Amino acid sequence: MNYLRNTWYMAAWSEELAEGALFNRTLLGESILFYRKTDTSVAAISNRCPHRFAPLHMGTLQGDCVRCPYHGLTFDSAGKCSHNPHGDGRIPKAAQVKAYPVIEQHLAVWIWMGDTDKADTSLIPDYAFLSAAKPTARNLGYLHTLSDYQLLTDNIMDLSHVDFLHPDTLGGGALSRVGAKLSELDGNRLGILWEAFDEVAPPAFAPHLPEPQALADVWTDVVWSPPASMYLSTGVAPAGGSDELAVTSANLHVMTPESENTTHYFYANTRSFLQDDIEYNRMLNEMLVGIFAGEDKPIVEAQQRLMGSDDFWSLKPILLAGDAGAVRARRILAGMIEQEQQAD
Amino acid sequence: MNYLRNTWYMAAWSEELAEGALFNRTLLGESILFYRKTDTSVAAISNRCPHRFAPLHMGTLQGDCVRCPYHGLTFDSAGKCSHNPHGDGRIPKAAQVKAYPVIEQHLAVWIWMGDTDKADTSLIPDYAFLSAAKPTARNLGYLHTLSDYQLLTDNIMDLSHVDFLHPDTLGGGALSRVGAKLSELDGNRLGILWEAFDEVAPPAFAPHLPEPQALADVWTDVVWSPPASMYLSTGVAPAGGSDELAVTSANLHVMTPESENTTHYFYANTRSFLQDDIEYNRMLNEMLVGIFAGEDKPIVEAQQRLMGSDDFWSLKPILLAGDAGAVRARRILAGMIEQEQQAD
Amino acid sequence: MNYLRNTWYMAAWSEELAEGALFNRTLLGESILFYRKTDTSVAAISNRCPHRFAPLHMGTLQGDCVRCPYHGLTFDSAGKCSHNPHGDGRIPKAAQVKAYPVIEQHLAVWIWMGDTDKADTSLIPDYAFLSAAKPTARNLGYLHTLSDYQLLTDNIMDLSHVDFLHPDTLGGGALSRVGAKLSELDGNRLGILWEAFDEVAPPAFAPHLPEPQALADVWTDVVWSPPASMYLSTGVAPAGGSDELAVTSANLHVMTPESENTTHYFYANTRSFLQDDIEYNRMLNEMLVGIFAGEDKPIVEAQQRLMGSDDFWSLKPILLAGDAGAVRARRILAGMIEQEQQAD
Repeated sequence: MNYLRNTWYMAAWSEELAEGALFNRTLLGESILFYRKTDTSVAAISNRCPHRFAPLHMGTLQGDCVRCPYHGLTFDSAGKCSHNPHGDGRIPKAAQVKAYPVIEQHLAVWIWMGDTDKADTSLIPDYAFLSAAKPTARNLGYLHTLSDYQLLTDNIMDLSHVDFLHPDTLGGGALSRVGAKLSELDGNRLGILWEAFDEVAPPAFAPHLPEPQALADVWTDVVWSPPASMYLSTGVAPAGGSDELAVTSANLHVMTPESENTTHYFYANTRSFLQDDIEYNRMLNEMLVGIFAGEDKPIVEAQQRLMGSDDFWSLKPILLAGDAGAVRARRILAGMIEQEQQAD
Repeated sequence: MNYLRNTWYMAAWSEELAEGALFNRTLLGESILFYRKTDTSVAAISNRCPHRFAPLHMGTLQGDCVRCPYHGLTFDSAGKCSHNPHGDGRIPKAAQVKAYPVIEQHLAVWIWMGDTDKADTSLIPDYAFLSAAKPTARNLGYLHTLSDYQLLTDNIMDLSHVDFLHPDTLGGGALSRVGAKLSELDGNRLGILWEAFDEVAPPAFAPHLPEPQALADVWTDVVWSPPASMYLSTGVAPAGGSDELAVTSANLHVMTPESENTTHYFYANTRSFLQDDIEYNRMLNEMLVGIFAGEDKPIVEAQQRLMGSDDFWSLKPILLAGDAGAVRARRILAGMIEQEQQAD
Repeated sequence: MNYLRNTWYMAAWSEELAEGALFNRTLLGESILFYRKTDTSVAAISNRCPHRFAPLHMGTLQGDCVRCPYHGLTFDSAGKCSHNPHGDGRIPKAAQVKAYPVIEQHLAVWIWMGDTDKADTSLIPDYAFLSAAKPTARNLGYLHTLSDYQLLTDNIMDLSHVDFLHPDTLGGGALSRVGAKLSELDGNRLGILWEAFDEVAPPAFAPHLPEPQALADVWTDVVWSPPASMYLSTGVAPAGGSDELAVTSANLHVMTPESENTTHYFYANTRSFLQDDIEYNRMLNEMLVGIFAGEDKPIVEAQQRLMGSDDFWSLKPILLAGDAGAVRARRILAGMIEQEQQAD
């Protein structure tokens, strides 16, 4: 499969990488070992020992190095073999695994899958809102999903689906009616603004407004960054009222391909209201799992099954108003991949 | 795979399609949505929404239409999009799914998978005996089977197997000895008559004869209709005695391909004796499940595994006397498929 | 896949073949039926009936013959059809299945997968130590393993892995340091001697020495016979002391391919100490399961997954000192296979 290589992919939530533990995740078809060094910074190296192809994540962490479980070759975080316990102990030149540029930022771990010398950390989207949020007003989630990652991107890029798939929580009927304003941003990014006035507030927000039954203004501002990161700024306010009365929520949805038809789906939610309410936070977490794992994931996985191994465009999808953002994102990404491959 | 297209396939038992429900079944590799309209007649349309390929059966039934679960396009029973909730609501010309001719007859639902204008309901085999039977003298069954549908046809077309695979119920040793008389019927149908005199009655029938231990005449008359429907009229009578003392049973076995190597196997049984005995009917149902699910299905699935992906004829099966009907049915069907494809 | 054909493969432990039972195992991709004849000698014939490809192992043992479960053709241990219950009972010439030379020797069943006329039982490695061992000083095991059989051979041929994978039982740190002496034996066999002096005794042996904490001499002598049988003679003795004080163990590891990437792994252990201790024997069995099923198998299966469908050499494994034996065995076997195929 053709992936964009020279880009940062989200590999994990920070909390998934415990100190002293070896963590394995396959990204873009490559099995990768993640672990924290003694200074707690994250290392990412190929998980496949070059000796006998045993998985290093089943081995032992020794300081900043990892020892292969099978015959004991030890590798450092740069992927170099630092110890060979066999015979005279000489280290073969080829005893080396790939090391990936990796950085932890705002509660997430990002990895660069392309040419190491092009890895520029300033290219990672700035999601400082995540680390800035109070823990009691923040929920992070992860879903392993049996679909191509672009189907999951499409799902977020066309939020009109909330009216049909999530009518009891996020939907209100407004988004599919009003449509969205698409804009091109710098850095190959896209903006999509969904905005509606004098509408019924979505069920998940209504109870937190001064007058839950009253008409409201609702909006979601989406920023897509290639290859598959989406930031959503959502708000609901009394119709025509002051923004001071708005309840708002900042969200992240990031898709990282595991293989051609399987995806690591990361999502996050923060909010402006009830920020110290631990019990509400827990209930909201359950609601988010219900929505993303219970409603989105089954539909997208069923979509993938019905598409089989056919290419998306070869099936000639009918395009509706809400598809503009998703289609534009697919085209930008395809262009970037093509450009990258021609440069090679 | 090459399937006969211009023919009726049994899609479901009527009782599988509840009012108000969406029912999905894949036939010949095509995912199809079945539902009852408000007049209770059955609709069958492609299950794959042409917008984003979401499965319509996960959506909502609205009167005679179904709304896609994902972005709310609504389709009627002719497959036409009847409502687009997005933007200005204009319905794209291509917003349409395939509608299949479908008809409910004698407790079963039949679907036409070929050219719509050739769908002639008079071509459906007449299985009026099913609806005519008392409910307490009737059992219907369904088995999802991991084999090519023709292996399941072969199973019924060579009933000599009952002596070895079902010795405690249907077998008596006679069928494999006497062989069968094969005849060509109109409409590309085949008849097979298995008939033996002065034999031990099969265990499933013997207790219902006046003298269970006495010798009996036994017969089964099979009518195969392409592509894979078999009607079996079975009887056991006191040897040389009057047919008035016979106990008889009319049966149906229909195989519909789901995919190349998976099959929907429908079977039915009615009888001339103990027609009002609910408890016997329940016990008989258990016996039928024991025979078809517990004895036939495992052998046929094992057969398929041992054949792997090899073509049946390429494995050069040895032909015995009992194979005549099965081989003839395979040849007729292959000829019909070839003819159909040359006509295209 | 290319297998060596003209060779004996271990098919089962004798105890797996109960009298009166039909036993099915797939070897080199061929489904085979094993059973004991009335004289208790073992028969091995193809499991696939030539009539309809039903599995004979689901049939019935009748004296020295087996009856097919489906239509009752009966085959003898030479693979010839001995009874046809259909029609006039004439037996078609082609009604025959392949019969394999098979022999039971020293608690194991060996099968010849190549040209029958080349099957020379003197070519079976002599593992008389197995039948000679007291039952209370013997453990036999079987593991179905999801890997190519050669990866499992590699595992035994490079015993340096015990220091890392089995540190709590078999490892002591010595083997990876001292390396092994490789020698070519007759019959395309290989010998590998691992020998170390003045070492800490491995935990599994230490308690059985006069002074468990004292330094010890340790050795393992491996004899590999193609295609994949390994005999291991292991000993631990007080350092510089008399061999009379040694505790020793004779072991067998035999790998038989089931399919390209699945293997039947047979292992056996006998010992010189506590030979009448049933409870110790039981505990030792648990230890062996812990080592082979709990430590080796998961690593080798993970190795296979990380290799995917790539050829071993195409992945350019780095070779360490301990690999010499495994590499030599692979080369000898590849040469034998090539030679055999050129002769065809």
